[in-house]
Amino acid sequence: MHAGTKRIESNFEYLRKLFIMPDSPDKFIEFGIELLEMIHVFFQKEAGIHSSITLPQLSGIFDQTAIPESPMLIKDVLSEIKSKIIDHSVKVGSPCYIGHMTSAIPYFMILIEMIIAALNQNQVKIETAKASSFVERELLAWLHRLVFNRRDSFYERHIHNPGVALGNVTSDGTIGNLTALFVAREKALPPDDGFAGARAEGMAKALQHYGVKRAVVIVSARGHYSIRKAANILGIGEENVITISVDSGNRMDIRKLRKRLRVLDPRYGGDSRVIAIVGIAGTTETGNIDRLDVMEEIAHEAGVHFHVDASWGGPALLAEEYRGLFRGIEKADSVTIDAHKLLYCPMSMGMVLFRSEKDLNAIKHSSQYIIRRNSVDTGRFTVEGSRSFTCLKPWASLKIIGREGYGLLFRQARRNTDIFKKILEKYGNFECLNHPELFILTYRFIPVDVKERLLCWNREAAASAEKRKTFEKGIARVNRLMNAFTVKLHKELRRDDSTFVSRTTLESTRYRPHHIVVLRAVLINPLTTGQYLEEIAATQNRIALQLWQEFAPAYGRMAEEVGGSIPYQMLESCRIL
Amino acid sequence: MHAGTKRIESNFEYLRKLFIMPDSPDKFIEFGIELLEMIHVFFQKEAGIHSSITLPQLSGIFDQTAIPESPMLIKDVLSEIKSKIIDHSVKVGSPCYIGHMTSAIPYFMILIEMIIAALNQNQVKIETAKASSFVERELLAWLHRLVFNRRDSFYERHIHNPGVALGNVTSDGTIGNLTALFVAREKALPPDDGFAGARAEGMAKALQHYGVKRAVVIVSARGHYSIRKAANILGIGEENVITISVDSGNRMDIRKLRKRLRVLDPRYGGDSRVIAIVGIAGTTETGNIDRLDVMEEIAHEAGVHFHVDASWGGPALLAEEYRGLFRGIEKADSVTIDAHKLLYCPMSMGMVLFRSEKDLNAIKHSSQYIIRRNSVDTGRFTVEGSRSFTCLKPWASLKIIGREGYGLLFRQARRNTDIFKKILEKYGNFECLNHPELFILTYRFIPVDVKERLLCWNREAAASAEKRKTFEKGIARVNRLMNAFTVKLHKELRRDDSTFVSRTTLESTRYRPHHIVVLRAVLINPLTTGQYLEEIAATQNRIALQLWQEFAPAYGRMAEEVGGSIPYQMLESCRIL
Repeated sequence: MHAGTKRIESNFEYLRKLFIMPDSPDKFIEFGIELLEMIHVFFQKEAGIHSSITLPQLSGIFDQTAIPESPMLIKDVLSEIKSKIIDHSVKVGSPCYIGHMTSAIPYFMILIEMIIAALNQNQVKIETAKASSFVERELLAWLHRLVFNRRDSFYERHIHNPGVALGNVTSDGTIGNLTALFVAREKALPPDDGFAGARAEGMAKALQHYGVKRAVVIVSARGHYSIRKAANILGIGEENVITISVDSGNRMDIRKLRKRLRVLDPRYGGDSRVIAIVGIAGTTETGNIDRLDVMEEIAHEAGVHFHVDASWGGPALLAEEYRGLFRGIEKADSVTIDAHKLLYCPMSMGMVLFRSEKDLNAIKHSSQYIIRRNSVDTGRFTVEGSRSFTCLKPWASLKIIGREGYGLLFRQARRNTDIFKKILEKYGNFECLNHPELFILTYRFIPVDVKERLLCWNREAAASAEKRKTFEKGIARVNRLMNAFTVKLHKELRRDDSTFVSRTTLESTRYRPHHIVVLRAVLINPLTTGQYLEEIAATQNRIALQLWQEFAPAYGRMAEEVGGSIPYQMLESCRIL
Repeated sequence: MHAGTKRIESNFEYLRKLFIMPDSPDKFIEFGIELLEMIHVFFQKEAGIHSSITLPQLSGIFDQTAIPESPMLIKDVLSEIKSKIIDHSVKVGSPCYIGHMTSAIPYFMILIEMIIAALNQNQVKIETAKASSFVERELLAWLHRLVFNRRDSFYERHIHNPGVALGNVTSDGTIGNLTALFVAREKALPPDDGFAGARAEGMAKALQHYGVKRAVVIVSARGHYSIRKAANILGIGEENVITISVDSGNRMDIRKLRKRLRVLDPRYGGDSRVIAIVGIAGTTETGNIDRLDVMEEIAHEAGVHFHVDASWGGPALLAEEYRGLFRGIEKADSVTIDAHKLLYCPMSMGMVLFRSEKDLNAIKHSSQYIIRRNSVDTGRFTVEGSRSFTCLKPWASLKIIGREGYGLLFRQARRNTDIFKKILEKYGNFECLNHPELFILTYRFIPVDVKERLLCWNREAAASAEKRKTFEKGIARVNRLMNAFTVKLHKELRRDDSTFVSRTTLESTRYRPHHIVVLRAVLINPLTTGQYLEEIAATQNRIALQLWQEFAPAYGRMAEEVGGSIPYQMLESCRIL
């Protein structure tokens, strides 16, 4: 109990009234307006993105270890929420927050959330979700057509065919990927003579029945960690997720995929059953897209389920100009798409779609009191049980924004990505490490002379077999130093807190085989203008230059020890173009 | 595109403005008020619970198979939502809707949903969820203490200890149960000399390493279908979920549990590793609670993880008077609780809590760009990836309603359960089939003379070895007839649509071994008064009596064929007390 908050008597009549939408909604509207103002102020405030409060301080604020005994007034709890929570939340909608796949959201989403909560439908079952079940199926048909573009008659037949499901609405992309691999597992280890299927008898019996030692899932080194997690959950085993390295475009190396498939194949002495090959349409780290058409052919030639994790990039299909990047996705067996990323819905909702309307039947289940066998309940096909009417959000936003509108949003996002890249290049002190296909840029701060020296060493290593080792070692040492620098820079940027990008570590395609720590910008917020991008780059450059003073001496020693020709004229350890 | 809706030009500036909380929130408030009125009217309307529209009609309404091209005005989409969706939603908050575990919700929940959407935090990671990560941990500590009641020092040490997690907030109870069994699987098949654990190497290698043929999960016949689903997903296999039948109190038969455990045990010639024994605290169908204390002892004696599925009943722990029913839960290894059931939150949110702060480490994972190994990110422990700030709902409602308030709500729910039982008994034409411990009643309509005749036959079967078969067969035939009747009655009640109860099929504890179709009432809505319960019973009795005319002749023939003494005086096939 905090000072200033009022303790109130527990009283059933008072409680009961909380459950009734007030006859005159004044009280409600009053609270609503107050809340909106809070939120409004929060977004207007010039304060930092993450609030300056430290984690230990937050621990001190949320330190109650027992449930409150007595009721509190709504207004007291709302003002507690304001001071303790809203003020210390992350401004993921800020135009200077370009670090993760969260963005500002359209304000009508808040209205839609009110409807969802007020109706409180449970999508598991038609008895608790009447029109909303149909909204869900309509939405899934829309997305199915967007991805697979089957004939009109297919959609007319199946949009509301209760015997099948074109896909599931899931709590997020991770559960979408899990669902896809779950279906793929059952398809790869299906019921058979004397065997009831992996689902019924478990993984050990399944592998035994099919005479293989292990089941595997194949994905590129850029695969999202949810693939590993799914393999873990599904009893496949994380170690049996085979990662294939990527080419310079961050796409799965196709030659290596073919080679690996052959090694795994029992017909050529292998011991594995391939559950699925997973293509990525928008890698989380670099936004690049696998060569889905080639992978699809390879997978289907091998009789393997081809899943595409398009959690991030999928909605770009709404804009005709990006369609080409996804060539082959229309022949995938399953595709995951997140609504809370490029469909600009609030957290969180995913979808998993299956090209064949029959695939989800592989995991269909039923029970007596709910989702009965011959019911129309969507819960027969889902991993989750109770699910909210969250699908109303993309259903409404696809209407309010439309394909054309999403196209404009993505065009702007793409433009911002190019602008940001150009701004960084103009500084000279940055190095971009991916070729953005969608809206993600990975880069690092690296003073121009360091960059040039690395290039020289690279040339010299190639030219002289004798000195090759020396120069290669030099490159590795400098990159390690730069990695430490980037980690520290990211911390400094967090401390400054006026802008935000994320960081990750990539197995470099430029400096193989080194791991390079990079900054990562996700440029999807429609509120982020060129002006903001200039500010973000200037802030980063300023803070980085300052920090570089600490690292320059170590770099100088390395340069001296390795030797080689000096790039241009080194006037100082760090030069600004 | 529908008549009357306005097609608007796609225009980036227009779109961009949608992403900004309007400077003056007038527009927003205007929409908000409109919406609230819609919702208000929806709940006030005297129309039926499910709306009279048929499913084929709904198919006709939601029949667009392609995503709209052009943007639509927000107001047009909202009015479409009103006429197409709100009007045809299920009134799960109606006081006469006592069929599922959905209820009216307190109106402040709608405000909280607005905050959650506006802040749009992603709980996966501290960089996208600052204060909200602490709210989540505080809430989990509250519930952990409610269930396990460990020492103060335990909570002080671990409430914000980033190295461990006391539990997860999940999308629902199903994912909660899945998470618990996932942890249990890893604990039962852990890393070992030359073996990296089930998680890393998969289920086949795990069973091989530990020299058993299968892994099993044990639960009573009343277990929720999510347990079977989890076993399926986890590669354990649905067939390896061993269901133990229940006693007359719908609780797991302890004798049978012991027996079965011995049969499975490799030390006594068995071939199985028991992953978990699952107790139920509030069975979905009857609301009864397993003998958790005894089961806990048995599980731990056998070195097996003891999970309690308290998705439904768990929050009853908030009221001291129910604590006794749950005795033993404080020693469970893990417990699942749903927030959208007895915590009266909107759909959907579950929680899974682990007694030992170390348990969730068994499934901890990390990645480079997010949830790094040494981070404080909650996403390291969860099955899902992106998760919304949904935990704010129970956090706020536990403050606004308080333990005392929840206690009052449950007391009222219990009172309503007793009242409804008494009303049904007063009619005579009903038979209650469970002893409610919490707030669920299962029953069926059965004319009083039929009920009495079944009793007579039962007595006569017991008395005469010679005629036993005849009478037992008679009982079975009548019960089959009554099952068909109840199914049809449920359909008729759905057609009437002024009240709603659900139906299920229970392996009867009274008429063993028959399966009895029953009606199921869940009495948790604080708006449901005795008056409503009278109306519901009267409606059911009236419709049932009418329907019985159809079934009476068949019953008459059975009665004649089986013979035996006639109970009281049968004046007509159906008598009303």
